[in-house]
Amino acid sequence: MPHLPAWLQSVHHDGSDGFVSNPYPRLGERVRIRLRAGMDAPIRRVFVRTAPDGEQAFTLMTPEEATPPSRWWQAELPINQPLVHYRFTLEAEDGVWWLNAAGPSYFDPLDSADFKLLADYDAPAWLHETVFYQIFPDRFANGDPDNDPQPHEYEYRGHGPQTFPWGTLPPDDTPFPLVFFGGDLQGIVQHLDYVEQLGVNALYLNPIFSAPSNHKYDVIDYEHVDRHFGGDAALASLRAALDQRQMRYLLDIVPNHCGYWHPWFQQARADAAAPEAAFFTFSQHPEQYAAWLGVWVLPKLNYGSAELRRRIYGGEDAVFRRWLQPPFSADGWRVDVANMLGRQGASQLGVDVARGIRQAVKETRPDAYLLGENFFDATSQLQGDQFDGVMNYSGFSKPLRHWLQGYRQGAWGMDDSISSPQPFPTAALAAGWQSRLAAIPWAVALQQFNLLASHDTPRIQTQVGDNEALHRLAAALLLTFPGVPSLYYGDEIGLSDLPQLGSRGCMVWEERRWNRGLLDFYRTLIHLRRSSEALQRGGFQLLAVERDSIAYQRATASQRVLVIAHRGQQPRPASPLPVAHGGIPDGARFTELWSGAEAAVVGGALPLAEHPQGATVWVMRNA
Amino acid sequence: MPHLPAWLQSVHHDGSDGFVSNPYPRLGERVRIRLRAGMDAPIRRVFVRTAPDGEQAFTLMTPEEATPPSRWWQAELPINQPLVHYRFTLEAEDGVWWLNAAGPSYFDPLDSADFKLLADYDAPAWLHETVFYQIFPDRFANGDPDNDPQPHEYEYRGHGPQTFPWGTLPPDDTPFPLVFFGGDLQGIVQHLDYVEQLGVNALYLNPIFSAPSNHKYDVIDYEHVDRHFGGDAALASLRAALDQRQMRYLLDIVPNHCGYWHPWFQQARADAAAPEAAFFTFSQHPEQYAAWLGVWVLPKLNYGSAELRRRIYGGEDAVFRRWLQPPFSADGWRVDVANMLGRQGASQLGVDVARGIRQAVKETRPDAYLLGENFFDATSQLQGDQFDGVMNYSGFSKPLRHWLQGYRQGAWGMDDSISSPQPFPTAALAAGWQSRLAAIPWAVALQQFNLLASHDTPRIQTQVGDNEALHRLAAALLLTFPGVPSLYYGDEIGLSDLPQLGSRGCMVWEERRWNRGLLDFYRTLIHLRRSSEALQRGGFQLLAVERDSIAYQRATASQRVLVIAHRGQQPRPASPLPVAHGGIPDGARFTELWSGAEAAVVGGALPLAEHPQGATVWVMRNA
Repeated sequence: MPHLPAWLQSVHHDGSDGFVSNPYPRLGERVRIRLRAGMDAPIRRVFVRTAPDGEQAFTLMTPEEATPPSRWWQAELPINQPLVHYRFTLEAEDGVWWLNAAGPSYFDPLDSADFKLLADYDAPAWLHETVFYQIFPDRFANGDPDNDPQPHEYEYRGHGPQTFPWGTLPPDDTPFPLVFFGGDLQGIVQHLDYVEQLGVNALYLNPIFSAPSNHKYDVIDYEHVDRHFGGDAALASLRAALDQRQMRYLLDIVPNHCGYWHPWFQQARADAAAPEAAFFTFSQHPEQYAAWLGVWVLPKLNYGSAELRRRIYGGEDAVFRRWLQPPFSADGWRVDVANMLGRQGASQLGVDVARGIRQAVKETRPDAYLLGENFFDATSQLQGDQFDGVMNYSGFSKPLRHWLQGYRQGAWGMDDSISSPQPFPTAALAAGWQSRLAAIPWAVALQQFNLLASHDTPRIQTQVGDNEALHRLAAALLLTFPGVPSLYYGDEIGLSDLPQLGSRGCMVWEERRWNRGLLDFYRTLIHLRRSSEALQRGGFQLLAVERDSIAYQRATASQRVLVIAHRGQQPRPASPLPVAHGGIPDGARFTELWSGAEAAVVGGALPLAEHPQGATVWVMRNA
Repeated sequence: MPHLPAWLQSVHHDGSDGFVSNPYPRLGERVRIRLRAGMDAPIRRVFVRTAPDGEQAFTLMTPEEATPPSRWWQAELPINQPLVHYRFTLEAEDGVWWLNAAGPSYFDPLDSADFKLLADYDAPAWLHETVFYQIFPDRFANGDPDNDPQPHEYEYRGHGPQTFPWGTLPPDDTPFPLVFFGGDLQGIVQHLDYVEQLGVNALYLNPIFSAPSNHKYDVIDYEHVDRHFGGDAALASLRAALDQRQMRYLLDIVPNHCGYWHPWFQQARADAAAPEAAFFTFSQHPEQYAAWLGVWVLPKLNYGSAELRRRIYGGEDAVFRRWLQPPFSADGWRVDVANMLGRQGASQLGVDVARGIRQAVKETRPDAYLLGENFFDATSQLQGDQFDGVMNYSGFSKPLRHWLQGYRQGAWGMDDSISSPQPFPTAALAAGWQSRLAAIPWAVALQQFNLLASHDTPRIQTQVGDNEALHRLAAALLLTFPGVPSLYYGDEIGLSDLPQLGSRGCMVWEERRWNRGLLDFYRTLIHLRRSSEALQRGGFQLLAVERDSIAYQRATASQRVLVIAHRGQQPRPASPLPVAHGGIPDGARFTELWSGAEAAVVGGALPLAEHPQGATVWVMRNA
């Protein structure tokens, strides 16, 4: 593409309150939308381009009084259909330009990256103020040693479970899924002080329903909490303890498949005429059947079965409904492999199943958070009718990792990785982020579950090769990027991956082994995040894309936060950061979060001293 | 974005037979796909990245023996779901790169622009060899003066129809929809020699069902051909006459709305309890009702009504089915305002209605062509489950017009145009085209109904300000671009817009008034198009994007055609056109279509003499 004129960088719109009068309109409402551009942008007229009932329509925007360094235009947007998508057409001295969420362009863009408003959308409002903390229950804390799995209790793939002493490494020959450390829900309850002092206010628990493995993605009973985690009663107690602290929690569910020993599958194997036989896909009964990536212990559930749909989400007592109700009252669900759910070759029911689950969840509890696991392009599931959010690897952490550490892409069934020592150019990081943000409604973008690591990835400390400056940089972006941040237990104290256990090592409770400086860094960040409207609901605008640095703004009508991240080992030399194109006036004063340094905008730029590897976060001081 | 390394321009894949072993696979089949790159591309390994049932998978591609100037890789692709999307991952010395249909990128692209193969897709195979000719029946030829509309016959908005002498201009005060010239189906039959000699082999007829206006988009009877066009019998005769010449035709239908005087609407107005009342949307019966863009004579049809769905497409005798059957046997439908169909505010049934129509049409006649009108981004309707093609303004002619003539965008309800005298940069033309091609499966891209003009636009001769060189340039692109070309009647003899009648003037039958040079130019082009596999099924690769010139290749495994278009008033100076990145070897010899000039590739480039304003088309000679 030809280079776009520089003035287009100053043209901005997003879904935040400075630009959209109501991000959660009802059908039939009228919303006021605004566009901002630099004072010297050679714009003659601005139009909002909509497509009511599929037909193109243009609305001339009204200029507002200029507020240097910006000019503004506004228009009313009728919310006349469930999803209203819009873009802007700029008639300027040097041509006609388009702006949609993918940025400015010379040619009429596709609808998919238009700005989007959802009518009558059930958004979990509490998400904005939430910071999650992910816990892998067997590895967080052992609250009740009496319920630890014992070798004689059951046999799984020829072995019995073993509980090892907390924090030890199991012998090499121990079957991986049967290594236990005795963590349980009681342990979580006992450590809620720690969690609360960290500043997070919601938990995401890896699966806790009955299952033989330590990870419990091989569920054998959707109706009960595993007894080794304390059973149903322990979950009710956890709920009560969380309530006392005004904290929330998500459950993790695997509706894509179940465990081989689930009674449904055993009944299906025993009797091809059993109702449960239709829950699975046998190519040859009973030995050959569809399974998750061919893994025989994880038979795939077949949503062609109406009875299965009823039991999982459709019926009044369905799994997705019951755990959202007292005494468990989960605040939402994390849905395992949401990308694969309901998809089986010729039968692609993924959209129907996701919509059905959404309906069940929102009927039961309109403010529940419905989060899907999807490592890949999930934008088609994030248009308001399926998931509220996904584990945001694709839209946040994966591009960031490539920017920090070079390219490395493994995949199921591949012996080695696809890799390159070349780190991403900063423009590729920016474009990777922007492409995902632009493809979904802004209200949905704010609900993405951002994370640096999980039980499925290396820990962030390991990803960055134990470079604490880069760890801190990544954490600063996590807590300031649009979406809902989630920490993976122990990352805040600097845990690294362990042999055999990977990122699933035991939480360390000896404080002398904590990285206290890092913990304080996280606490400061989390505190800011939880108190900053700009970070919770603010728009997102890239301000600078340099060779080794990136800078962005999060802003509401009344608050601004600037984030500057520098990956280079050599510091970024002192030099002003242009900010006028972000609508930031001269004289605006900012305070840096950790250092307390102060700076005021002069001549359209923020004076910056030498910036070491890492991130700084600049909060605008109110006049 | 950072500039991509130049070698990436040589990396190519598309849906043509040099790259995909079967573009129309059945479910369960395996297809061989290939990737091409320049000899010196620093590629270590190439992977195909797929997403079977939503999960990312990589397949290492096998290098083939190099055929200078290209290296090739191949892999087997299992067609394991209805839509298989794939991209390529290139592990190279200078980084990891991605290629999907949108082109190469530094970051993992979104699924929407992946290459796509449809399983078990009903494609109308005859389209490849087809060139359409659009006829506005009242204005093409008056075959039977006895059926011309007479003022006393009916009244419409207070006026009676008037038939004016052929080729005259009606007085200023004549109501536009009531101006007739007496054209009819008999007239078309009488001029099939002309049509056949032009070289086209299919007609697209503007609406012919009974309606009071000349354009007949205000249908009052979906079951009969208007008597002024000769009635049902004339259509059966036209079908028979076309059969003798092995020609085909499309009918035009308006399922979005009907005319005010349609009996359904009259019954609905007369009786709010009539079954037909549910076919419409009354906000206040009988005076206030939904209508196409608020035009009261065109009440909107409400597809919430099951009975309406049955009558229009669902039932055995439904409108969409009956005209595809003898004695009328239309070869397909052009669906008016397909972009709006079934969409009414809170009720957005567009997808369901389009799928329902598709099912009815393909059940009745699997090789029927289902074409929608959609001036805007139609890519969501072109994924294989809705329309075979759309009137391709957005993906072909609109970007071309902006490149040739500067920007001008009118819209319903807007007093003036959004405009700029700045023509599109050539890169914006390229990106505009590519963005639309990339968003749909290649098999569907080949079915787009390309056009330079229609009854809804100015004639091409008028669009280019009577510059015949630019007219010829546009025609050359029309006949060589991926998709199915359609000429608008009379454009081939150089007709311009007329006062009041716009592009709907009467066809001129006095040969002395024809632009015979232009007609010969069209005939030569159409002959090439109809005999060239490369133009019918060949891939598409941009070879050059210069300030005022664009060059592309259409190629199959055995044929190549190069197209060079230069818009500048000043000729493009003589200079070689690089073609090695198109996989074209040194020594390849080309012959220019009109001049007969010959040229052979030397040093990776085609030597080109000074190129005047206009287009040249270079056909590779077989060795």
